[in-house]
Amino acid sequence: GDAALGRKKASACQTCHGMDGLSKLPEAPNLAGQVEPYLVKALSEYRDGKRQNEIMNVVAKELSDADIANLAAYYAGIQIDVLPPG
Amino acid sequence: GDAALGRKKASACQTCHGMDGLSKLPEAPNLAGQVEPYLVKALSEYRDGKRQNEIMNVVAKELSDADIANLAAYYAGIQIDVLPPG
Repeated sequence: GDAALGRKKASACQTCHGMDGLSKLPEAPNLAGQVEPYLVKALSEYRDGKRQNEIMNVVAKELSDADIANLAAYYAGIQIDVLPPG
Repeated sequence: GDAALGRKKASACQTCHGMDGLSKLPEAPNLAGQVEPYLVKALSEYRDGKRQNEIMNVVAKELSDADIANLAAYYAGIQIDVLPPG
């Protein structure tokens, strides 16, 4: 997907997921640096109802395949560093 | 949950998710620093079949509530830094 286009689309996601991909709500997962094909799969499953979430089923319904690919590219592209566990 | 106990339990997760919570497979999401209640919800849904995944439905079936709480605490407790998007 196209991360730049995804970034524009992400304005619809930022309330819960942030533009930086860090969750703003306890129910919302972090998306920053997440695995791109996993994001595509999750979004597709929210769109077709295989995955249930009141908000995401509504939000995802509007998304095209291109939107999903672009959003996945945007959030997956956010760099994260993991500090090795203690 | 108890992250130290979760860390022991995570040996069952490391093949796909890593002990560091960074995905080792395209299908497996990163877990490092993920939102703790989100991890509890996801694991519980894999356990009771609300969320479908061949591997996770089998793996999660064995987990007790305490295991789920401890695993969530372990992976959520791994520190991540997000480099602000460009």
